[in-house]
Amino acid sequence: MALESSLAALSLLEPIPADAQLTKSLVFKDKKGNSVVLLALSSTKTDSKIISKAVKLKDVRLANEDFVSKSFNISTKEFSIANLASIEAATKEKLKIVIDSNLSNLDDASSLIVQNQSTKLFISKSDYIGYITQLNLDSIVVDFNAPKPQQAKAQAAKLEDAKLIGITIDKHLDFPGWYSQVLTKGEMLEYYDVSGCYIMRPASYSIWETIQDYFNVRIKKLGVKNTYFPMFVSSRVLEKEKDHIEGFAPEVAWVTRAGSSELEEPIAIRPTSETVMYPYYAKWIRSYRDLPLKLNQWNSVVRWEFKHPQPFLRTREFLWQEGHTAHLTFDSANEEVLTILDYYAGIYEELLAVPVIKGKKTEKEKFAGGLFTTTCESFIPATGRGIQGATSHCLGQNFSKMFGIQVEDPSGSDKPKLYVWQNSWGLSTRVIGVMVMIHSDNKGLVLPPRVASTQVVIIPVGITSKTTKEEENAILDGAKKIESELLKAGILATGDYRDNYSPGWKFSNWELKGVPIRLEFGPKDLKKNSVVAVRRDTSAKSFINIDDLETKIPDLLNTIQQDLYDRAKAKFDSHRIICDKWDDFIKALESQNLILAPWCGVMECEEDIKDSSARKSEEDEGVEHDDKAPSMGAKSLCIPFDQPELKEGQKCVRCGKLAVNYTMFGRSY
Amino acid sequence: MALESSLAALSLLEPIPADAQLTKSLVFKDKKGNSVVLLALSSTKTDSKIISKAVKLKDVRLANEDFVSKSFNISTKEFSIANLASIEAATKEKLKIVIDSNLSNLDDASSLIVQNQSTKLFISKSDYIGYITQLNLDSIVVDFNAPKPQQAKAQAAKLEDAKLIGITIDKHLDFPGWYSQVLTKGEMLEYYDVSGCYIMRPASYSIWETIQDYFNVRIKKLGVKNTYFPMFVSSRVLEKEKDHIEGFAPEVAWVTRAGSSELEEPIAIRPTSETVMYPYYAKWIRSYRDLPLKLNQWNSVVRWEFKHPQPFLRTREFLWQEGHTAHLTFDSANEEVLTILDYYAGIYEELLAVPVIKGKKTEKEKFAGGLFTTTCESFIPATGRGIQGATSHCLGQNFSKMFGIQVEDPSGSDKPKLYVWQNSWGLSTRVIGVMVMIHSDNKGLVLPPRVASTQVVIIPVGITSKTTKEEENAILDGAKKIESELLKAGILATGDYRDNYSPGWKFSNWELKGVPIRLEFGPKDLKKNSVVAVRRDTSAKSFINIDDLETKIPDLLNTIQQDLYDRAKAKFDSHRIICDKWDDFIKALESQNLILAPWCGVMECEEDIKDSSARKSEEDEGVEHDDKAPSMGAKSLCIPFDQPELKEGQKCVRCGKLAVNYTMFGRSY
Repeated sequence: MALESSLAALSLLEPIPADAQLTKSLVFKDKKGNSVVLLALSSTKTDSKIISKAVKLKDVRLANEDFVSKSFNISTKEFSIANLASIEAATKEKLKIVIDSNLSNLDDASSLIVQNQSTKLFISKSDYIGYITQLNLDSIVVDFNAPKPQQAKAQAAKLEDAKLIGITIDKHLDFPGWYSQVLTKGEMLEYYDVSGCYIMRPASYSIWETIQDYFNVRIKKLGVKNTYFPMFVSSRVLEKEKDHIEGFAPEVAWVTRAGSSELEEPIAIRPTSETVMYPYYAKWIRSYRDLPLKLNQWNSVVRWEFKHPQPFLRTREFLWQEGHTAHLTFDSANEEVLTILDYYAGIYEELLAVPVIKGKKTEKEKFAGGLFTTTCESFIPATGRGIQGATSHCLGQNFSKMFGIQVEDPSGSDKPKLYVWQNSWGLSTRVIGVMVMIHSDNKGLVLPPRVASTQVVIIPVGITSKTTKEEENAILDGAKKIESELLKAGILATGDYRDNYSPGWKFSNWELKGVPIRLEFGPKDLKKNSVVAVRRDTSAKSFINIDDLETKIPDLLNTIQQDLYDRAKAKFDSHRIICDKWDDFIKALESQNLILAPWCGVMECEEDIKDSSARKSEEDEGVEHDDKAPSMGAKSLCIPFDQPELKEGQKCVRCGKLAVNYTMFGRSY
Repeated sequence: MALESSLAALSLLEPIPADAQLTKSLVFKDKKGNSVVLLALSSTKTDSKIISKAVKLKDVRLANEDFVSKSFNISTKEFSIANLASIEAATKEKLKIVIDSNLSNLDDASSLIVQNQSTKLFISKSDYIGYITQLNLDSIVVDFNAPKPQQAKAQAAKLEDAKLIGITIDKHLDFPGWYSQVLTKGEMLEYYDVSGCYIMRPASYSIWETIQDYFNVRIKKLGVKNTYFPMFVSSRVLEKEKDHIEGFAPEVAWVTRAGSSELEEPIAIRPTSETVMYPYYAKWIRSYRDLPLKLNQWNSVVRWEFKHPQPFLRTREFLWQEGHTAHLTFDSANEEVLTILDYYAGIYEELLAVPVIKGKKTEKEKFAGGLFTTTCESFIPATGRGIQGATSHCLGQNFSKMFGIQVEDPSGSDKPKLYVWQNSWGLSTRVIGVMVMIHSDNKGLVLPPRVASTQVVIIPVGITSKTTKEEENAILDGAKKIESELLKAGILATGDYRDNYSPGWKFSNWELKGVPIRLEFGPKDLKKNSVVAVRRDTSAKSFINIDDLETKIPDLLNTIQQDLYDRAKAKFDSHRIICDKWDDFIKALESQNLILAPWCGVMECEEDIKDSSARKSEEDEGVEHDDKAPSMGAKSLCIPFDQPELKEGQKCVRCGKLAVNYTMFGRSY
């Protein structure tokens, strides 16, 4: 059936007006054979998911040639609204018409172009809609422009005065959106084409290098030596310690093919290296004189999580260090566990200006297969959630028994052999995510000076069209001299002398990158032999005499470092609430706090606390996994070493049994 | 049938003599149903491969219960030589008897014990053999002690005076065996349970750290920044550049499963990161102002080679750095390629005391998909083979065209866009293998002082049973004082004060580890206020006044470093022969030299050189892959930058066409 014959009456005369809009008529289908005809402006992006939702059919897809010709007796290329006039009852029964609101909202007098492969004609919008209406088909108008729920939220969080290059999402209204922007626009991280994997760009990798230096110096003094074990593990070795592997098995990535050959046996990529290393510890440790054996490696591990990934916090491959040591006595192992935990706290507090609470994990939360786990726990004020910072485990003798790592008793070969005491401890690039979440703001990254790869940026200002070439050169030379003086003083300084950007643009650009201090140098400063220093963290301005830079800038960097820490500490302290009663516990949790509560230490009670504190609401359904966080229950984060005093006869906050300590609970990452 | 009834006549009287030897009778089969009965002393290790070879049947294996009972009408446990007396014709036809030569070589009067589960009897060896012989079966005597070809070689290479803890294989007689021992006994490396993967122990990893420091300082000055890209690549991205991937595809490891879920699409582990990185270069490089972009990463890559693996030289996972840079102009790219090559040469020559020849690879040997490749080539005197040290590639614009990495021409936006010029360059842990192969000896590792994690070891000597406690303490205190003085002077010194080992044992132990200087300190030295210094490389002894240690030890370390380099250089120089004629070429090659030959530059000629120089002999058959090296043909190693003068009209060494340069050829790793 030709288009003309069917619509001839409606067709307007040539020539087609210049503002006539092209339409499209497309056939969709679901798996059950229902069909949907979409009538839309060609310019409208018509997402099939929106169609699915509107007609309440699952997985609606563009129909193939076969389906179209069977249902409408016409080829896809020739299909148009003309074919809707004479469809069979069987087809009609299973047909829905979706009309684009962009089309139906047009003025009635607007001209539309309807075409198929062989013909083109144009009609007014009112005739088009009239034609469809008189066919009496099951039809619905759909708004393809409507934002999705997440988009609606994102819309509300949009920053009013954000420049195009800057952050456009508010930290407090859409935290995940803000986090993603601040990382990518701050050039720390790039999303990658394999899901759950991310690129660490120089701005974040340099922080990791600073952490490596800090940690290496300290552990080498303890006698720890760096090493490298293979990333591959045979399944036989991986599965040697059952409790341990149970924790990791669901996330292990398996190599099964090399080139075009299937491997005889699949090989795992390490999720951690206990079972990779310990068979060799058994080989190398021949005598108590070989103890302690202290090895560490900086490597990547793979945990193929199926949960919603988050940059730095939950990624399928991540960088970390893992230390593995073997000792003759428990005391020696125990002492090291705590020393390493102090180093981890030092990385957070001294380098990243992030306060942490040190403590011990509960039995439920400890490392699978270990004796006990110590941890540094931090707090993300924007979400009110706790986050595990780094853990230092005492493995006890469990692994040494499993892998047969034993030595003669130094006090006599007649005595039974001794199994060694082992530790393992790890800190990952997650630290960088925690730092960003805590300090950064709506202008971008805020980097603590001790980890910033650029600590000071010098920007020439006040150069206008009235500035003479001589003045301009004097300003540029002055700025460059400041840069070289600072570099000489060991400060990581750089000048931004680009002539294709305004000072204002440069300010925003360097704020985005989180550089702790901006120095503005213009004609006035030149005269006064001073420079304007602007703090990234507070925007506070001060004047510094150029002759004092060498001392004043390091002072200011130290002040910034300290202030960042102090502010984060004040927030953490004010959001860590002591609750002796369950009602208070729930209230404090809902107000985005962590809770210190007297607790009985019983695993079932811990599970009950988690279940009972979860907000059971339906409203979050359909939202992406991690956004459910506000409804999740409170987990135990740690039993802090620094304990509030437990009153005589104090009861557990939940079950009413006698409390054994104060435990920190909270929603967590 | 009971054992007794059949052999009763032959059975000797009780009691069984004390020196009677137990025998075994075992049934083997191949896949085609042929059976083999093995008659041997129980003490003989009877390798089924040797049986296979002896009876010329493939894959002979111990037969299962089913097969035994079917063929011999008896259970495996009851089977003995008694059952050979009455076998059916069908079984007999497919049966071979293998007699252990250890058994048949016994004196005729020797007593043997024959037993099955239910009975035991003993007979003389002559009766045993007589009984077998009269059965008239197809039998053969096999020597299970015969060394395999490799073992024979290894036997000859065994060091006469090697102590148990030391190296027991001669470097020049069995180089691969020696190499393996020197690495493992020197505690550099441990063999790992996944084939082709090795553990880098602290002794080698610390060398890698020294190299990292050396290289990082230099490249950071060039503006290169460190970064980390994921180890996973989607197949779509991996396969984007066809020439490039063709070179790597057969060795790519694929992850197809995570936990218990099959992945929707297999994901590759990077064999190198060009295709991992360049899509993001296209994203990040928006303007010529973003150039040059210079990134580097220290990571591991995986190439699942099926060739015989070799520690450090050919491993399935290895550590390296890979630099990837993008430039506006060819000149900028070209300059960097050569600068990086100089740094690589510096790592070899300055740190590892290994001389190299810098040059360009031929078209045949260049990096797949690149424009040209520059290289550092070294030489292993013990095998007369060249070895590629590290390569720095100019990729030209091939990848930038493939990945769409382009910028506006700085001279005007009206001009066509420019594709960037790219380089990539990499150096791997192979360097450590080269260093070991060149300097180390039959006493163990020899480490150049600049990369030794322990440069000096102090060993107290001369303490005997006659030594007073006071003298002993004075010696120990003196040694410890030397140690602390050296440490203060920044020398990596350690004292070996263990009381459970003799000085001699300690000497060997530290020689094994390659520590450059041993200081012996005993009663005489105490009196003279001096110490005996022994060089690891030459065993030369000298006396150093204790007051001069702070200057003399660094001097001696420098001398050792220089001497190691000079000796290696002299060897390399004397084994690099200029050959203008093909006969000389072959002779030089057979005498374990590299060759500098005038060459035409044509790829077919290069292939002809390789084929024509391969030694076609059968003698190596069956020997492990890498041992074939002496028969392999000569490859082009590089076109050295430093060229011998090419005479007017000089002809190609092989094809007689006009030569375009001198090219270095040789057998290689």
